[in-house]
Amino acid sequence: MGEQPSQQKAFVLKSIKNVVFEDKPVPELKSPRDVLVQVAWTGICGSDVHYWQNGSIGDFVVKEPMVLGHESSGIIVQVGSEVTTLAKGDRVAMEPGVPCRYCTPCKSGKYNLCAEMAFAATPPFDGTLTKLYSLPEDFCFKLPEGMSLEAGALVEPASVAVHIVKQAQVVPGSNVVVFGAGPIGLLCSAIAKNFGASKVILVDIQEPRLKFAQSWVPGGCHIIVPERVPARETAAKIREHADLPIGADIVIDASGAEPCIQAGIHVCRVGGTYVQAGMGRDEITFPIAAACVKELNVKGSFRYGSGDYKLAVDFISQGKLDVEKLISSKFSFDEAEKAFEETKAGKGIKMLIEGVKD
Amino acid sequence: MGEQPSQQKAFVLKSIKNVVFEDKPVPELKSPRDVLVQVAWTGICGSDVHYWQNGSIGDFVVKEPMVLGHESSGIIVQVGSEVTTLAKGDRVAMEPGVPCRYCTPCKSGKYNLCAEMAFAATPPFDGTLTKLYSLPEDFCFKLPEGMSLEAGALVEPASVAVHIVKQAQVVPGSNVVVFGAGPIGLLCSAIAKNFGASKVILVDIQEPRLKFAQSWVPGGCHIIVPERVPARETAAKIREHADLPIGADIVIDASGAEPCIQAGIHVCRVGGTYVQAGMGRDEITFPIAAACVKELNVKGSFRYGSGDYKLAVDFISQGKLDVEKLISSKFSFDEAEKAFEETKAGKGIKMLIEGVKD
Amino acid sequence: MGEQPSQQKAFVLKSIKNVVFEDKPVPELKSPRDVLVQVAWTGICGSDVHYWQNGSIGDFVVKEPMVLGHESSGIIVQVGSEVTTLAKGDRVAMEPGVPCRYCTPCKSGKYNLCAEMAFAATPPFDGTLTKLYSLPEDFCFKLPEGMSLEAGALVEPASVAVHIVKQAQVVPGSNVVVFGAGPIGLLCSAIAKNFGASKVILVDIQEPRLKFAQSWVPGGCHIIVPERVPARETAAKIREHADLPIGADIVIDASGAEPCIQAGIHVCRVGGTYVQAGMGRDEITFPIAAACVKELNVKGSFRYGSGDYKLAVDFISQGKLDVEKLISSKFSFDEAEKAFEETKAGKGIKMLIEGVKD
Amino acid sequence: MGEQPSQQKAFVLKSIKNVVFEDKPVPELKSPRDVLVQVAWTGICGSDVHYWQNGSIGDFVVKEPMVLGHESSGIIVQVGSEVTTLAKGDRVAMEPGVPCRYCTPCKSGKYNLCAEMAFAATPPFDGTLTKLYSLPEDFCFKLPEGMSLEAGALVEPASVAVHIVKQAQVVPGSNVVVFGAGPIGLLCSAIAKNFGASKVILVDIQEPRLKFAQSWVPGGCHIIVPERVPARETAAKIREHADLPIGADIVIDASGAEPCIQAGIHVCRVGGTYVQAGMGRDEITFPIAAACVKELNVKGSFRYGSGDYKLAVDFISQGKLDVEKLISSKFSFDEAEKAFEETKAGKGIKMLIEGVKD
Repeated sequence: MGEQPSQQKAFVLKSIKNVVFEDKPVPELKSPRDVLVQVAWTGICGSDVHYWQNGSIGDFVVKEPMVLGHESSGIIVQVGSEVTTLAKGDRVAMEPGVPCRYCTPCKSGKYNLCAEMAFAATPPFDGTLTKLYSLPEDFCFKLPEGMSLEAGALVEPASVAVHIVKQAQVVPGSNVVVFGAGPIGLLCSAIAKNFGASKVILVDIQEPRLKFAQSWVPGGCHIIVPERVPARETAAKIREHADLPIGADIVIDASGAEPCIQAGIHVCRVGGTYVQAGMGRDEITFPIAAACVKELNVKGSFRYGSGDYKLAVDFISQGKLDVEKLISSKFSFDEAEKAFEETKAGKGIKMLIEGVKD
Repeated sequence: MGEQPSQQKAFVLKSIKNVVFEDKPVPELKSPRDVLVQVAWTGICGSDVHYWQNGSIGDFVVKEPMVLGHESSGIIVQVGSEVTTLAKGDRVAMEPGVPCRYCTPCKSGKYNLCAEMAFAATPPFDGTLTKLYSLPEDFCFKLPEGMSLEAGALVEPASVAVHIVKQAQVVPGSNVVVFGAGPIGLLCSAIAKNFGASKVILVDIQEPRLKFAQSWVPGGCHIIVPERVPARETAAKIREHADLPIGADIVIDASGAEPCIQAGIHVCRVGGTYVQAGMGRDEITFPIAAACVKELNVKGSFRYGSGDYKLAVDFISQGKLDVEKLISSKFSFDEAEKAFEETKAGKGIKMLIEGVKD
Repeated sequence: MGEQPSQQKAFVLKSIKNVVFEDKPVPELKSPRDVLVQVAWTGICGSDVHYWQNGSIGDFVVKEPMVLGHESSGIIVQVGSEVTTLAKGDRVAMEPGVPCRYCTPCKSGKYNLCAEMAFAATPPFDGTLTKLYSLPEDFCFKLPEGMSLEAGALVEPASVAVHIVKQAQVVPGSNVVVFGAGPIGLLCSAIAKNFGASKVILVDIQEPRLKFAQSWVPGGCHIIVPERVPARETAAKIREHADLPIGADIVIDASGAEPCIQAGIHVCRVGGTYVQAGMGRDEITFPIAAACVKELNVKGSFRYGSGDYKLAVDFISQGKLDVEKLISSKFSFDEAEKAFEETKAGKGIKMLIEGVKD
Repeated sequence: MGEQPSQQKAFVLKSIKNVVFEDKPVPELKSPRDVLVQVAWTGICGSDVHYWQNGSIGDFVVKEPMVLGHESSGIIVQVGSEVTTLAKGDRVAMEPGVPCRYCTPCKSGKYNLCAEMAFAATPPFDGTLTKLYSLPEDFCFKLPEGMSLEAGALVEPASVAVHIVKQAQVVPGSNVVVFGAGPIGLLCSAIAKNFGASKVILVDIQEPRLKFAQSWVPGGCHIIVPERVPARETAAKIREHADLPIGADIVIDASGAEPCIQAGIHVCRVGGTYVQAGMGRDEITFPIAAACVKELNVKGSFRYGSGDYKLAVDFISQGKLDVEKLISSKFSFDEAEKAFEETKAGKGIKMLIEGVKD
C-alpha cells in the first residue's frame, strides 16, 4: 500500500482529562490473514469516558498515551495475502478485541476471557479513533446491503447486549427484568424480545429513557421508576406491577447501582438467573442468603464471544433491532472532544464520531 | 396396624431454647404409596440447633411447638397398599422433604425449590426425633447389605454435599477450593474427589479439622489456615500454596463467613464456578466487579433433589465415602438434649441420637 | 355432581377398522386436585388413524375397546376439593397424558418418559372423544381471553412441535431444515421462527402444502420439493438452494420417511443437531459414519413435557402462531367417523370434531 | 539449529499396500510459537493400517505418498522465539492435529470439527513416523516426572477415549455399556470408571480381551460375549446379566459393528445417551423408532478437543489409567512394517515403534 503515508492523525488520551490530536504510525498487517480498515464511524462508550476522566478502570491503568475508541465500522482498504473472506471496499463492523487463540479459554469457546486479549482502547492497546486500523479478517463482519456504516458502529454495544442475553439464557416465554435504560439496558431489552421473552420490564430513574424504550423495544415493554425504598420493597413493587407473582425468570442489571443489584436479586424467582452486566463500585452489600436459598445463577458478562457479532449484525440487518434510533448526534473527527463532553454530560443515548476524511 | 399405639414420644421445641419430650399422635399413611418408618438414628444439623437457639432461620419462624430432627435412617414397619419398592423390615435412609409434585419446579426437575415442600423440622412441619415417621416410598432409600443404619443417618448431609458438588459442576480434572471444614465442607471435599477433582484445597481456621480431613478425604487434600488479611491476599496465598496460578476452577463456600466468601470470589479463575453452600448473615460485602469481569457463575445450593440421595447411598455403600468416621458420639433418645448441647458447643463433627426403643 | 348421568356417549375403537358409538361410565375425580372437563373440540391425529387402521403402534397394542381422541379443549364443569387454579366455567386446553409423579424421569424433569404414563387413546387408556374427561388441574391450561376453544384443541400438536424445537435447541440465528409439511412439520417451522431461527427450509413432495407454508410460517420459509435422487444429492441441492454452504445447524424430520432421514443427516453441518420427530418404519438404512465424523447430535422427541403446553398457549394467544388456519374442516360428534375417513384420505391439514352437545 | 541435516528418514505410504523408507525434508518452524520435536515412540492405530491397506477412509483419499503415524511422544529439540511453555529437552505427548484457529468451530470450543484441520497421517498431511516433527507449543503436553515416553505415545488413543466419554456425559453413578474391547473400548471402559461410572459392562466376541479387561479396568467390569441372536435379545441379555432392568444410562459403541449398534440402541434406557465411537460401514440398518420414542441422544465422537489431552495425561500420570499394560510389543524404527503387519493380524493390543535413533 505504497500510496499510504506512514503517519496518521489520532485522538489520544495523553493523561487524565487531557486529550489531544496526535500523529501515530499507520499500522502494518502483522499476519497474512490481517486486513486494514479505514474507520468510518466510532461510537463513544462509557468506558472511553471513564478512562478519559479517571485514567483507569479496575486493574487497567493508562500509563502511556493511548488512542481512544473501540465501537467502530469501516471500509476495507487492504487485505493480507491469505485473506479469503473480505475484499477491498467491503463495509464492515469491527470487533475490537483480538485474543491469543492459544490459551485454554480461546480453545474452549470463551475467547472473551483470554488473558492475552489485545483490546482497542484498553491499556496498553491503541483504539480506533484514527484513520486506519488493522484486524484479522475473522474480526471484521461484512455489513449486508442496506445496513449503514452508522449502524455498523452500533454493532459493538449490540454485541455486548447479545452476550449478556445469552449469559442470561433467555428463552421463549421468559420474563425478564432489566435495570438501567442506558444503551446497554435498552439493547438488552430489545434483544431479550428477539430471544422470545414474553415480557420485559425495564427499570430506571430517568423517565424519558423509559418512554423512549416503550416504543423502541419490539413489542413494547413494561416500565418502572423505582422509589427510594428498601430493595425488597422495590422487588415487591416490580412483581406486583408486572404481574410476576413468583418473580422474574431472569434479571439483568445494566446499571451497576447497588440498590438495583439488591432489588434484582430479590425480584428473581427461585432457580432464576441474574446477570451482572453493568459496572459500578468494586464491592457492594449483597443479599447472599437470598441468592443461596433461591438457588440463583448469578453470572457476570464480559464483552462478547463466538457468534455474538454475527448475531448482532443479523438482528440489525433483518430489521429486528433498530439501532439507528439510538444515535443522538454525529460529530466530525475534529469535534471528537465535544462528543466526549456530551456523553459525559449524559446527553442523548449514543454519540458517533466520523472517521478521518481523506 | 392395629397393634400400634396412637401416641408416641417426641423431642419437641416448645419455644426458644426450650425443648421437652412430649406425646404426639402416631402418623397415618396419607397415600397408598406411603410407608411408615421406625426411626433408627438421627444426626443433628446446625439448622436444628439454630431453631432451638433462635426460633427461626430466615423467613422460617417456629410459631407452634415442633418436633426436631431430619437426618434419619430407619426400618419400614408398614407399607401402603400400592407400595411396590419396599417391604416391612427394609432398612432405609429417609429423605425428609416431600414436595407437592404439581408445581413447575417439581415438574421441571427442581423439586427442592418447590414452594409447598413439607420438610421435617422446618416450621410448621414436625421432624423425625420420634418413633414413627411416614414418607412416600420414593423418599425412602434402601440401604444395601453391609451399610449400617448409622451410616444411613449420614446420607442426609452427604446428599446436601452431593447437591452442592453437582451445582458446582465438578468434573474430572477440576481444581476445587472448599471453605469450611464442618460436616458439609468435609463431605463436599470427599465428594468432589469422587467426581474426579484432581486437587481439593480445604480452608478453615480450625487446624484439627484440617488434619482430620487430610487423611479422611480420598486421596488427600491441601489444607490452608487463612490469616486475618484482606481477601485478595488470602486468595493470592491459596493460589500460591496450591499451585493454582490462574486460580481455582471451582470454589465452594461451606462456611457462610464473609471473609471466606470474598476470598472465594477472588481465588476463582476466569469463567469459574462459585457455589454458596453455607449460610451466615443475610447480607455481606461482595466483590461484584470481580465476579462480573471474570464472568463467574455464582450459584446457590439448597437441600437436594433428583438422584442426590441415591448417589450418596452409592458412594457410602461402595466404600467411596467413609461417613462413619464423621460420627463423634452417639446418644440414646433420652439424652437428646445433651446431644444438642454438645453440637452447639462445637464438639466433634457429627452427633447421632438413637431412635425410641420399643 | 348429582345432576350428571352416570353414562356418556363415546367414540370407541372396537377392533381394527371398526369404530362405534357406545355408552361409557362418566369418570370420577380420583384425587382432590382433579377436575372434570366437558370436551369442546378434538383434533384428529395420525396416531388415532393408525390405531383405527392397524390396531397398534409399535409396542402399544389395542386389546380392549378404547375411546379414541387426545387433542382436546374443553370447559371445566367440576373441580376437586383441593383445586386452586381452576374454576367451573374455565375454558382449557387439555394435556392428555398424566405421569406417575414418583419415578426418576418424573422427578428429574422428563415426565414425558414416565413408564407409567396414562395417555389418552393409547392402550389401555380411553381417549377424549366423549363428553366428560377427568384430569389433574396442572394438566389443564386456561385459555386467555380471545383464544378460541378450536385453537385450544390445536395446543396439543403445537406442544408436540414446541417439544421438538426445544429438543433441537433452536436458538436465534439458527438455520433449520424441516422435512415433512404435515401439521407437525408446519408447526415446527413456525415455532422454530418463534425461537429466532433466521432461516427455515421446508421440504415435502406435496407442493400445495409448501405453498401454504410460505405464507403461513411467520416471516416465510424456503420450500423445496426433493427429487428421487440419492440422499447426498438431495442434501447438496438443499444446501445450494438455501445458501447453506456448510450445511444446516439443525434438521427436524417430521416425515418418518427413509430418504428424508438420510438426506437430513447429510444436510446437517458438523456439530449440528438432528431431531427425529416423525415415525415411519421401525428400522431404516442410516448413514451412521456421517453422523459419527460430523459429531452430530441425533435426538428423538416424544410427546411434550414441562412448560411445553404453556408455551404453546402463549404463542397462540399472543398471535405468534395462527393455528386456526390449520383447521380444514369441523365435524359434529356424530360425524366422527367421517372426520377420521377424511384424515385418512389426506384431505386438508387438521380436522376437528365437536364435543357431545348437552 | 544449524547442526541438523536438511533431510530425514521417514516411513512412507507410497501407494496401496506399499510402504517404504524414504528421505523427507526436515520441517521448519512456521510460527514463532512452534517447536520441533524428536519423535520417541509412535503407536499404530487402526486408521494407519486402513490407509495402508485401502488407501482411503471415507472422503479422505491418499493421492500422494504420505508419512504414516500420529500417536507419538517425543523430546523438544528446538523452540520458536515466542514459545514460553516449553524448553529444549522437555518430554511431551504430541497432539497431532492442528486446527486453523479462525473458523466458527475453532472459536466456539469445537476445534476438532475444524474443516482446515492439518492432521498427521490424514491425507494430504504427513505423519510422525520420522525423526523430527513440528507443532505449535499448545499441542505439546509435557509429561510429568515418572511418566514414560512410551506412556506418552498412548496419550493419543487415551484422548480419543476421553473425548468419547465426555460426549457420553458419563457422571458419577452412571451405568455404561461399551461394545468392543479393542484399545478404544478398553480405554473408554477405564475412563468411564474415572468419571465415576458405578458399573461398566464390556461386550466383545473375543473372550481373552474381556478377561484382560476385568483386571485392567479400575474396579473391574462386567463382561459379556454376545451370541448370534437378534439385537433385542442381545440387549435383553445384557440388561439381565448386568442387572439393568430399565436399561443402561449410557452406551458407547467402539466396535462399528452393525449388530452392536442395534443392540446398543435397544439396551439404552429412555432418555439415555448413545455414542458412536467406532467406524465400520458407512450405512447400517438402524432402529430409528426405538431411538425416537425413547428420546435418546445419539452422538458422534470425532478425535479430541479442548482439555482432552491434558486430562489423559493427568489420568495416566496420577496412576488412574495404566496405559503401559496396553503395550503388547515394541519395534525399532527399521521394523515399522513388521509392527504394521502384526497390528493388521490382530495380535496384541497396541504396538509401538521407536523413533529414529541419532
